Amino acid sequence: MDTSCILVIFGGTGDLTHRKLLPAIYNLKRSQNLPDNFAIVSIGRKNLSSEEYREQIYLSLKKYSKYIIEDIHWDDISKRLFYKNFNFNDIKGYSELKTFLEELDKKYKTSGNRIFYLAVAPEYFDLITDNLHKEGLVKNTSSFQRLIIEKPFGRDLSSARKLNRKITEVFSEENIYRIDHYLGKEMIQSLMVLRFANSIFEPLWNNKYIDNIQISSSETVGVENRGGYYDEAGALKDMVQNHMLQLLTLCAMEPPINLTSSSIKDEKVKILRSLEKITPEKISKDIIRGQYIRGIVDNKEVLSYREEDKVSPVSNTETFVALKLHVENFRWAGVPFYIRTGKRMKNKSTEIVIQFKSMPKVLYGKSSDEILPNLLVIRVQPMEGIFFQFNTKKPGTENIIIPVQMDFCQNCQFGINTPEAYERLLYDAMNGDSTLFTSWDEVEYSWKFVDIISDYWKNNNETLYYYESGSLGPQKAEELLLKENHHWWNI
Amino acid sequence: MDTSCILVIFGGTGDLTHRKLLPAIYNLKRSQNLPDNFAIVSIGRKNLSSEEYREQIYLSLKKYSKYIIEDIHWDDISKRLFYKNFNFNDIKGYSELKTFLEELDKKYKTSGNRIFYLAVAPEYFDLITDNLHKEGLVKNTSSFQRLIIEKPFGRDLSSARKLNRKITEVFSEENIYRIDHYLGKEMIQSLMVLRFANSIFEPLWNNKYIDNIQISSSETVGVENRGGYYDEAGALKDMVQNHMLQLLTLCAMEPPINLTSSSIKDEKVKILRSLEKITPEKISKDIIRGQYIRGIVDNKEVLSYREEDKVSPVSNTETFVALKLHVENFRWAGVPFYIRTGKRMKNKSTEIVIQFKSMPKVLYGKSSDEILPNLLVIRVQPMEGIFFQFNTKKPGTENIIIPVQMDFCQNCQFGINTPEAYERLLYDAMNGDSTLFTSWDEVEYSWKFVDIISDYWKNNNETLYYYESGSLGPQKAEELLLKENHHWWNI
Repeated sequence: MDTSCILVIFGGTGDLTHRKLLPAIYNLKRSQNLPDNFAIVSIGRKNLSSEEYREQIYLSLKKYSKYIIEDIHWDDISKRLFYKNFNFNDIKGYSELKTFLEELDKKYKTSGNRIFYLAVAPEYFDLITDNLHKEGLVKNTSSFQRLIIEKPFGRDLSSARKLNRKITEVFSEENIYRIDHYLGKEMIQSLMVLRFANSIFEPLWNNKYIDNIQISSSETVGVENRGGYYDEAGALKDMVQNHMLQLLTLCAMEPPINLTSSSIKDEKVKILRSLEKITPEKISKDIIRGQYIRGIVDNKEVLSYREEDKVSPVSNTETFVALKLHVENFRWAGVPFYIRTGKRMKNKSTEIVIQFKSMPKVLYGKSSDEILPNLLVIRVQPMEGIFFQFNTKKPGTENIIIPVQMDFCQNCQFGINTPEAYERLLYDAMNGDSTLFTSWDEVEYSWKFVDIISDYWKNNNETLYYYESGSLGPQKAEELLLKENHHWWNI
Repeated sequence: MDTSCILVIFGGTGDLTHRKLLPAIYNLKRSQNLPDNFAIVSIGRKNLSSEEYREQIYLSLKKYSKYIIEDIHWDDISKRLFYKNFNFNDIKGYSELKTFLEELDKKYKTSGNRIFYLAVAPEYFDLITDNLHKEGLVKNTSSFQRLIIEKPFGRDLSSARKLNRKITEVFSEENIYRIDHYLGKEMIQSLMVLRFANSIFEPLWNNKYIDNIQISSSETVGVENRGGYYDEAGALKDMVQNHMLQLLTLCAMEPPINLTSSSIKDEKVKILRSLEKITPEKISKDIIRGQYIRGIVDNKEVLSYREEDKVSPVSNTETFVALKLHVENFRWAGVPFYIRTGKRMKNKSTEIVIQFKSMPKVLYGKSSDEILPNLLVIRVQPMEGIFFQFNTKKPGTENIIIPVQMDFCQNCQFGINTPEAYERLLYDAMNGDSTLFTSWDEVEYSWKFVDIISDYWKNNNETLYYYESGSLGPQKAEELLLKENHHWWNI
């Protein structure tokens, strides 16, 4: 496959470009995963020459790449890296860009192939695609023009639909790469291998053997400098609509007929379509919203959410969500899926816990409740790895049963040298593989799910449970599981 | 339960008593697992006073116990430890022993309870039990009298039956504790917990999910000073008849209805009764016998079997056996069980490898054979632990699948402080728990199985395959598995 292309980054002077994209490009270069015919054009509103831009990027690489920056790689990237300064609504800038890209095509043999990366605020998404279209930067030829956009994709179903209509006028669905950077995480990709390349898991992967599934993502940070955006969005739209539901679909989906991205998406969409219908009763009963108050995180006193910069002092936006839902298909009927995500929590961790049913207490565990269930834990971050809890006899003369843990720590075993999410995502986009990106169907169905909840919250005075910063979230989230005799595994 | 008793050891000056039994008693004392009302009488043919005997034992404890010998424990054992000198055929010795034990009963409140441990050569088994009987040391009262005997229990089915008839005239079956010291090993006990206290294994534990099971026990030592016995017995009778078939039954048995020793034995016997019938054709085809020749073990040149002390220089005795067999019941139909045991092998290890079926190569592994099957390995010795092999994605941008290993090392996690087999066995005998001992039914059925093979070998000139000391055994043993596209996992 011809992966020759020019990567065009809108938002070339932004944080994302400096901290993630160019370091990812450097790492891809280093691991020889960049195409030979390649160039980068960054576009920004700062007035810089390409030379000045390169100098700034070099400093950022030294700061944010986990590798030492070697001249041999940097020199090659540097000479293919260009900067253009124009305003995103300046139509002349696009036409000059077009000419410039065509010149680069000749020099770098990039055959008219483009990847447009919109590392900009979402309000610019349709403006930029529109102008790319108007000035003929997206052509219907044998070359490819792909669009990579960051989340959020809309604020709700209707704005997402509107945005999608706009950009699909310019790019066809298969050329739109909607980033969910959780999907670039190694373990999420490993989850598919775990399920479908190991004969012992698939037979157990259903409601006969699995008791419940818990998907948790906790952050220790607050809203940081994103208060303005976050206070509009909240945890439900910021995390559940995309990351958490993506993790759920990967856990729950049927084996796809093959590994093409469309086959995998078909299965993921089926899960989103099988989600239990959300009723007002269900929202009151099974969905807990929380907001952090002051507390201590990592030994430091931190402010309450309402005191954060750009957050309304009377904000009712949730910074924590816990919910229970069911996937209503033959495989999962009756198995609760618990989702939990929050900011300013005790620990930073994203993990999936598969709790298997308990063994009948016929032979062991008759006289005590000491036998813990088998757990399979897929750690996504910050540590990556797989953890397995099972019961064994305590060494000694008595028959005491204790849980022990087998830990396959991917970070440990392979070193911390695993590629960052963006490396993988950029690599896949260059190779035309959209498996790890979110398709429109998925966006649509997850907004449908989330909108019902957020609309209800908007129109009803549903309780907001406060939780201390540095805690495990509101007590109410514990009660949600206790109703079914479950509890969160904080592994 | 009243565990008060006197332990009467025949063979009190022998190796087993010095190296294993008294160290085990010391460790039990140390871990507070000895009854308060307790005494030990050792009987031997050396002329020693109890005082002299204690001194010798003290030296042995210092040498063979893994703990530092502390006065507080030793003083207590020492004053309860006595020595009697008489010949095993000296009937007067038994009557004096009886009187002495009755005196000790008063002093130590041992209520007439006895455990007779025959740490002597098998030819004395019936003589001693007979004399115990004649002199009235085994009574039919509310007190208990138990007999512990070491292997071998007979040389074949007929001699085993004869011996059993003799001793059951004196001790009832439930009071006979036939030691198989492999059963005292922690991991063997853990095997039951693993199978029956973890919900994820039992559903997979059958011919739908398991491809084959390999039970291997390799020693690096040769026949040592047991040449005389070994040359008569060979690996089949020395290892397969007892240890290997015991491991097989524990792996293969159905869940017992409860954890009483009789329920467990019922299930183990059912497996022995389900073993595939052994025909001459099967022996030629599926059972490999080997004998070691010179070679290098642990960097030391060693002699061939025929050059060993007390071994015939033209001996055809096997020091290695590999065999394939089937358990013909619903659970295991079609699953080969491979057994392999040998002396002078490359490594010392006893382990059970459960190889699960391969995943259909629909999604992963289509283009290569690189996907290894899932393995569950139960390490019995010298390391104890559980090891699990599964497939995961190799970190990096490409989808390469590699096997990784989760290792729960019991030795590591709990320290090497696990009780030796004899501690557990003595403790269980005092507590009247015969789960870890071999019942007569098991002895009988395993001799029936082994006799067919050894009789055939005696009467037919079946090939004996030589293997170099320090190797993995004869090449022919590899071919046995290759026929079914299997291979030995040397983990």
